[in-house]
Amino acid sequence: MKKNRIWLVVLGLVAASASIPFLNSCHKGGSTASAVGGDAAAKVYVAPGKYDEFYSFVSGGFNGQMSVYGLPSGRMFRIIPVFSVFPENGYGYSEETKPMLNTSHGLVPWDDLHHIAMSETKGEQDGRWAFGNANNTPRIGRVDLKTFRTTEIIEVPNSAGNHSSPFITENSEYVVAGTRFSVPVDDNADVPIDSYKKNFQGSISFIKADEPGKMDIAFQLRLPGVNFDLSRAGKGKSHGWFFFSCYNSEQASTLLEVNASQKDKDFILAINWKKAEEYTKAGLGKKEKVTYAHNYLDETTHTATSTIKNEVLVLDYRDPALKDLFYFIPCPKSPHGCDTDPTGEYIVGSGKLAAIIPVFSFTKIQKAIANKTYDGDFDGIPVINYEAVLHGEVQKPGLGPLHTEFDGKGFAYTSFFVSSEIVKWNIEKLEVVDRVPTYYSIGHLSIPGGPTAKPHGKYVIAYNKITKDRYLPTGPELTQSAQLYDISGEKMKLLLDFPTTGEPHYAEAIPAELLVKNSVKIFKIEDNKHPYVAKGEKETKVTRQGNQVHVYMTAIRSHLTPDNIEGVKLGDEVYFHVTNLEQDWDVPHGFAIKGANNAEILIMPGETCTLKWKPDRIGMFPFYCTDFCSALHQEMQGYLRVSPANSKVELSFGTGKKAAEPTASTK
Amino acid sequence: MKKNRIWLVVLGLVAASASIPFLNSCHKGGSTASAVGGDAAAKVYVAPGKYDEFYSFVSGGFNGQMSVYGLPSGRMFRIIPVFSVFPENGYGYSEETKPMLNTSHGLVPWDDLHHIAMSETKGEQDGRWAFGNANNTPRIGRVDLKTFRTTEIIEVPNSAGNHSSPFITENSEYVVAGTRFSVPVDDNADVPIDSYKKNFQGSISFIKADEPGKMDIAFQLRLPGVNFDLSRAGKGKSHGWFFFSCYNSEQASTLLEVNASQKDKDFILAINWKKAEEYTKAGLGKKEKVTYAHNYLDETTHTATSTIKNEVLVLDYRDPALKDLFYFIPCPKSPHGCDTDPTGEYIVGSGKLAAIIPVFSFTKIQKAIANKTYDGDFDGIPVINYEAVLHGEVQKPGLGPLHTEFDGKGFAYTSFFVSSEIVKWNIEKLEVVDRVPTYYSIGHLSIPGGPTAKPHGKYVIAYNKITKDRYLPTGPELTQSAQLYDISGEKMKLLLDFPTTGEPHYAEAIPAELLVKNSVKIFKIEDNKHPYVAKGEKETKVTRQGNQVHVYMTAIRSHLTPDNIEGVKLGDEVYFHVTNLEQDWDVPHGFAIKGANNAEILIMPGETCTLKWKPDRIGMFPFYCTDFCSALHQEMQGYLRVSPANSKVELSFGTGKKAAEPTASTK
Repeated sequence: MKKNRIWLVVLGLVAASASIPFLNSCHKGGSTASAVGGDAAAKVYVAPGKYDEFYSFVSGGFNGQMSVYGLPSGRMFRIIPVFSVFPENGYGYSEETKPMLNTSHGLVPWDDLHHIAMSETKGEQDGRWAFGNANNTPRIGRVDLKTFRTTEIIEVPNSAGNHSSPFITENSEYVVAGTRFSVPVDDNADVPIDSYKKNFQGSISFIKADEPGKMDIAFQLRLPGVNFDLSRAGKGKSHGWFFFSCYNSEQASTLLEVNASQKDKDFILAINWKKAEEYTKAGLGKKEKVTYAHNYLDETTHTATSTIKNEVLVLDYRDPALKDLFYFIPCPKSPHGCDTDPTGEYIVGSGKLAAIIPVFSFTKIQKAIANKTYDGDFDGIPVINYEAVLHGEVQKPGLGPLHTEFDGKGFAYTSFFVSSEIVKWNIEKLEVVDRVPTYYSIGHLSIPGGPTAKPHGKYVIAYNKITKDRYLPTGPELTQSAQLYDISGEKMKLLLDFPTTGEPHYAEAIPAELLVKNSVKIFKIEDNKHPYVAKGEKETKVTRQGNQVHVYMTAIRSHLTPDNIEGVKLGDEVYFHVTNLEQDWDVPHGFAIKGANNAEILIMPGETCTLKWKPDRIGMFPFYCTDFCSALHQEMQGYLRVSPANSKVELSFGTGKKAAEPTASTK
Repeated sequence: MKKNRIWLVVLGLVAASASIPFLNSCHKGGSTASAVGGDAAAKVYVAPGKYDEFYSFVSGGFNGQMSVYGLPSGRMFRIIPVFSVFPENGYGYSEETKPMLNTSHGLVPWDDLHHIAMSETKGEQDGRWAFGNANNTPRIGRVDLKTFRTTEIIEVPNSAGNHSSPFITENSEYVVAGTRFSVPVDDNADVPIDSYKKNFQGSISFIKADEPGKMDIAFQLRLPGVNFDLSRAGKGKSHGWFFFSCYNSEQASTLLEVNASQKDKDFILAINWKKAEEYTKAGLGKKEKVTYAHNYLDETTHTATSTIKNEVLVLDYRDPALKDLFYFIPCPKSPHGCDTDPTGEYIVGSGKLAAIIPVFSFTKIQKAIANKTYDGDFDGIPVINYEAVLHGEVQKPGLGPLHTEFDGKGFAYTSFFVSSEIVKWNIEKLEVVDRVPTYYSIGHLSIPGGPTAKPHGKYVIAYNKITKDRYLPTGPELTQSAQLYDISGEKMKLLLDFPTTGEPHYAEAIPAELLVKNSVKIFKIEDNKHPYVAKGEKETKVTRQGNQVHVYMTAIRSHLTPDNIEGVKLGDEVYFHVTNLEQDWDVPHGFAIKGANNAEILIMPGETCTLKWKPDRIGMFPFYCTDFCSALHQEMQGYLRVSPANSKVELSFGTGKKAAEPTASTK
């Protein structure tokens, strides 16, 4: 323990738990400006009317969302709600989207989205989807890049702290989901916490990802109880393999700060997933009873459904029939990043308490496996000899390496949390060629296409954890921040600081040209198959089924139809099904009614959204269009009268006339 | 009706409801770049490590929040949750903040925030508070600019569509809240919608604002049933008066698009609020029974409470004892903006269907009142003769004037929604001196200090409603947008397009120097009076009261205490009271537990926040710090074991030791 402490001091890590939060001093005012080239302003400026060159999809961390930024401007175009409710547009509140947030625990209104994986074909970004992970209540979500909407979410059973997720294979065959927190895999296992070594297990799920609506857990790998952290798929020559960093090989279950930092090396887990696929095709593995939700948004009904599933196929590392699936590679120390280079030959481990960066060779790994060059096993899984698979170590790179990406020109870029810097190094020669400070405490970094077989290079973006003194202060809670560096030359050049929303962990940037051409502008009204659609004002109506009142409403500049509704009674539940009749781009309408214990709905052209409302009193309730849509937007309003439960006021509705058009109850 | 249509065509307004959304053509690519000075990039670039010159507090519209931007960079530093839940930091989810969103309708998770009013002293910004309005369920909120937190919200009874709000008097005596939608004022009035003229009334509330925790409705003005839209207080010579734009003087209750656009002039309502104050001091007015919530966040307990109030003092325009309070000034046509110049002499009406801009003279208004130069009355309120109070009209200014601000140098800047432009004109001479296009359909505009007695000038910012083709596309839903123009010279110069979050309506910008010096960095742990605080790890404990389990937890880099908890049983409600022991700036900790039907809590240094969780199954539930706080953040985790309801597992807790430290149930 004392030895461990001393070692931490050497690495400067004690500062992280002491009262001095930064190792590098805090530059204030102009002191860093000199590091910025005089043309930086021109390089990041996107003139009015011009487009950015890249989209960057940035994880929102503890906001549970993805955000879309332009590069090089650093301007945020959209927050796409994925795992957290989003009152702004009704996501998680409308009847259509509530099912998206359903889980085996019921509706979960929040999560923690750390990583983005963009779909790939032959190892290159193809611009179809962006996947994100929910850490807290394990799930993976798919965002459709035609509509920039979350269209599918799958829950991951037997998992907790879904951190090493949603990394993707080179043809989007699978996205993976690995446990950060190992847990007793039987959800009902009431066991002591200190029985961790006996009862807790890790699991890594391979989720079919290449067909919208069909996400499913193809197989789940049952593994020893450790913490899985980050991951990358093999690519090119290593396609068919997956690599996961593991920490807490000490298998501690309390005070991990100390107890999971004991060993000098933890592991990278190499998985032969092609072989796992073969085993499942051969009928091996065992089906287990579990409960998890699969949620899918149908783009014709504009409505999500949630299906509870009850079975998962498990391949257990202790099953003697499942040979040659798993290998541990020793990796110093408490590794975070585990990244494969564009060729697929090199695997870079970033031990956050390590003083070097190890680079492993896939060719050597194959050879070591063939020769069984093992140093024993960990819980029955072979541990490959470290030196046998080492391409080499980057010496004295910095303090606290976290994550590495690639520029496609033979260089790797590694982020260093503790020494707050990005270090550029030569993959073959393992030589550091450049380093730049970041402000402050960088986590992940991102190069457009950086994790793929074909990086686009040009920029590296630092996602920093601390911004103290970098922006105008905003009280105790400060923005988290990104920094954009030009990497087109030999030396990295800081261009721009830009604040971000939420707590960005990771981002993946993609050339704009891959998405612009496919971006959907409107939903065609003739394709709308929503069960409560009104495709024109003549189809609007108000119907009653018991105490449920259904309003088939339309919105078009600048009126709602109907805009006068009477005959609703206390005790009724009112469903406003609002169809936006517009067929022009950028003309949403919104809808809200006074006093609702609900959010608004924001309805895109051609879409139908439903707001449920249960009036709590008798009286007059105004409703209105919430999105400034036209010169007469302020006139786009209406009234709903709520009468006593025993009232004899008949159901009636209309727009532009006396509000007295009685309608018979239907059904 | 036909005449009305023709007139709309003349004004180009039919385009707003036709398939061509823009009157100005859509410039693409570089065609607008030529309008941008070559030094624009340098003028908006804030180099890394440098600070912006202004804070801009931007309303979030249908996201219900305020956002804080830097100017001139256009970078967003923070979203401050006000009226909508914010899963990102637990606002509206933590036990401490849920009461902030309480209303007479129960917890309302969303609203629509349109306008910002910054506190003033002697007509100048003083940097204490920013107020915002909730349109849908009428409320006003106060944001404390020391902490950038919402600390107080008051509901407004007898009101609906709280749009003409929260405009402020020159010493922050009052913020006002006027109905956009007139309603029957008795909440239980079950009357037909078409009885509008008989039964519907407007109301304007004057809310005491100058003492935190003491917001209250000083008096509420009962007014004829019309739509009140926007407003400004008098200042300087007109201090003691308030001016509100009114539309729908036709008193229509359906298809307002047509029916509220019939008259050539609506009104500006001038209110002598000093006299209203006198009347209330004299005991006039009538107390009415109502129900509304007043919510206040105590900064020592870090906890909000909600109090339901039951009475409001009403001054009714029909009460013969209340003379000389109200005057209508005719104003063409469906006015939106109603703005007072820095001297307080001029009141500018912006009729969104008008072809001119009328400017009224406060001096002439006083004279007309003294001389009773009236053209009859509207529902008993005198209508002042238009020409008698007119300073003059700005001729051919543009189409669809909405809102006007001032540079303090004798010029006014008016936004034009329909013709998508900002027009600069001379207040005394009423001459247009410059115009610039906006992209597209500008709503409000903002000049730093622009609505005060002492504008700071330098920039005008356009808040646009449509951005089609201005940014990389993001599917059917696009960002809304701001544009920054340099107004330091004779001609306005477009510098920057910057996207915004939510649906910005209005913004008020303030010199950074007024806020930076007061910004709170941490909460002092010794001042923490939260009833469940643990001021050090020795004070941590887990107690049981019936089926309620209270966890007094601490967070400090890099562990939670306790991090092992056993003895919780199915059926229990668990309250995690987490105290962040850090006393450094920019070191929040977060807390979440798997499967909770709740958001996270994000806890600032020295603060205590509470997450309520009801486990839904037996098993092992990991929890963790959700904010990347240190090099060993990934180790900052723990486990809670849930046993069956009839289990004999004793309550125990600990960190860094065997999780077996039985504790007696307390109380």
